[in-house]
Amino acid sequence: MESAKSRIVTKASSAPPLTNPGELIDSVETFIFDCDGVIWKGDKLIDGVPETLDLLREKGKRLVFVTNNSTKSRKQYGKKFETLGLSVSEEEIFASSFAAAAYLKSIDFPKDKKVYVVGEDGILKELELAGIQYLGGPADGDKKIELKPGYMMEQDKDVGAVVVGFDRYFNYHKIQYATLCIRENPGCLFIATNRDAVTHLTDAQEWAGGGSMVGAILGSTKREPLVVGKPSTFMMDYLANEFKIQKSQICMVGDRLDTDILFGQNGGCKTLLVLSGVTTLSMLQDPKNSIQPDFYANKISDFLSIKATAV
Amino acid sequence: MESAKSRIVTKASSAPPLTNPGELIDSVETFIFDCDGVIWKGDKLIDGVPETLDLLREKGKRLVFVTNNSTKSRKQYGKKFETLGLSVSEEEIFASSFAAAAYLKSIDFPKDKKVYVVGEDGILKELELAGIQYLGGPADGDKKIELKPGYMMEQDKDVGAVVVGFDRYFNYHKIQYATLCIRENPGCLFIATNRDAVTHLTDAQEWAGGGSMVGAILGSTKREPLVVGKPSTFMMDYLANEFKIQKSQICMVGDRLDTDILFGQNGGCKTLLVLSGVTTLSMLQDPKNSIQPDFYANKISDFLSIKATAV
Repeated sequence: MESAKSRIVTKASSAPPLTNPGELIDSVETFIFDCDGVIWKGDKLIDGVPETLDLLREKGKRLVFVTNNSTKSRKQYGKKFETLGLSVSEEEIFASSFAAAAYLKSIDFPKDKKVYVVGEDGILKELELAGIQYLGGPADGDKKIELKPGYMMEQDKDVGAVVVGFDRYFNYHKIQYATLCIRENPGCLFIATNRDAVTHLTDAQEWAGGGSMVGAILGSTKREPLVVGKPSTFMMDYLANEFKIQKSQICMVGDRLDTDILFGQNGGCKTLLVLSGVTTLSMLQDPKNSIQPDFYANKISDFLSIKATAV
Repeated sequence: MESAKSRIVTKASSAPPLTNPGELIDSVETFIFDCDGVIWKGDKLIDGVPETLDLLREKGKRLVFVTNNSTKSRKQYGKKFETLGLSVSEEEIFASSFAAAAYLKSIDFPKDKKVYVVGEDGILKELELAGIQYLGGPADGDKKIELKPGYMMEQDKDVGAVVVGFDRYFNYHKIQYATLCIRENPGCLFIATNRDAVTHLTDAQEWAGGGSMVGAILGSTKREPLVVGKPSTFMMDYLANEFKIQKSQICMVGDRLDTDILFGQNGGCKTLLVLSGVTTLSMLQDPKNSIQPDFYANKISDFLSIKATAV
């Protein structure tokens, strides 16, 4: 009675809790899961995840794991799932590192052009697999600029795209190199893996995210990036094409309103917010929040209640 | 005839060239000069500057030198003028490093609070002179983050303002520290010395400017900074108060439309664009450019033509 009462106080436009997970499961064929805050937090698996994924697989659902984290490749991400005791194949994983490479392939990025990378190993690995030439990345992590009079940095004139992702070794050399490519190489693309304000490098606190690196390059080029990660629909469109999925048959499950839920809505999917990550119930129900999922749940293991009900 | 003709083609709303410098000089009592691109370019003095400044001093004009460059303090800037053979006193120099300290003094920044600095030595020096406690700056230039599970960075809870300026030793440690202060210390201010896309570290090319560092912190905090440098009017208001100048009696001379000229116009001053820096005549006359100064000239030594006329 108490909880029913408090629910009445909530304004009518706020998303309802997921009271009938069985119905949601039956209504879609694919679940797309965000990883940080949904499957794990930093290096810790969230309660009940293995059983939940098993349940959905038993019910014949296709599972896809998307993440805006570009520091790892699909293969490297696969190892993270394995370490946590989850059996997930490389093909089920869509990291924004992969999305950047897939985007460049989708536009037939010329073979004789190169990509300058501000970011970590995952982007390099995915570009390599896609057969795209690159420079930068961790190799530029220790570079310093010399400020002798007359000194100038020269960028490779063959750089046709700058890909920017989270980079813990971000420095001024990279800012200047990326800026020169974007400002001075005709037609050079500015691609962002994501613009997330925060990321979960460790489970102990929130860390400044890829939005910082992208913001820096935007600040010196005054150019808006093309975003391939959430909430842009590139990954969703790619997934729908690749697996021939109807978007209305997809449920996007995530912990962030302005990336995950917006991503699902932008793509025309059903959406489920879980409160196991960065968003709290009061943030969801704040009158200033205009992004409302179809449902919310505490965590994905709330799906398991259908088993209890079935018994 | 030819030049008169081509001038007719220019749309009516475009700024006229300075044909009568004597009239402009007589109409104001103070000249505010931007430095990079007006007085010097990188480490080289622009032609005719010493004679021009002498002429204006002879005519009893007050001279003020403003710069968005925050890497030096007023005193350090004084040395740069001296090295270039210009006699300018510390009190005539208004760098954005000084503006940041002056702003904090103007709001009575509490004595028990500290400033976290993303930037170079100039900001530290000015905070020191203003008696304001600080941390960060060059001392954090080599700091790296450790990503052991459970690791967290702890920020000083007494940081009440983050000041962000150009920083060639910018790194992820600084991004995360600044982000934590702004996001987690209640009421913490986010102050930008400037948001310039480019700066002239050397005379050989344009370098990514303070806009990069500010953009990075904006990207991780989603907070807009309070800007104390151009084109914000803080420095102009401070100057008007300090010297008891009427703003209509000031002429702002600069090479950038979106900082210098906008700064002058925001402050209600007369404005003169010089083409000795980043702006070309075609950029000024581009129909997409909406910022028009009162006049434009090739360089400040165009003032010297009044001498020739007087003979």
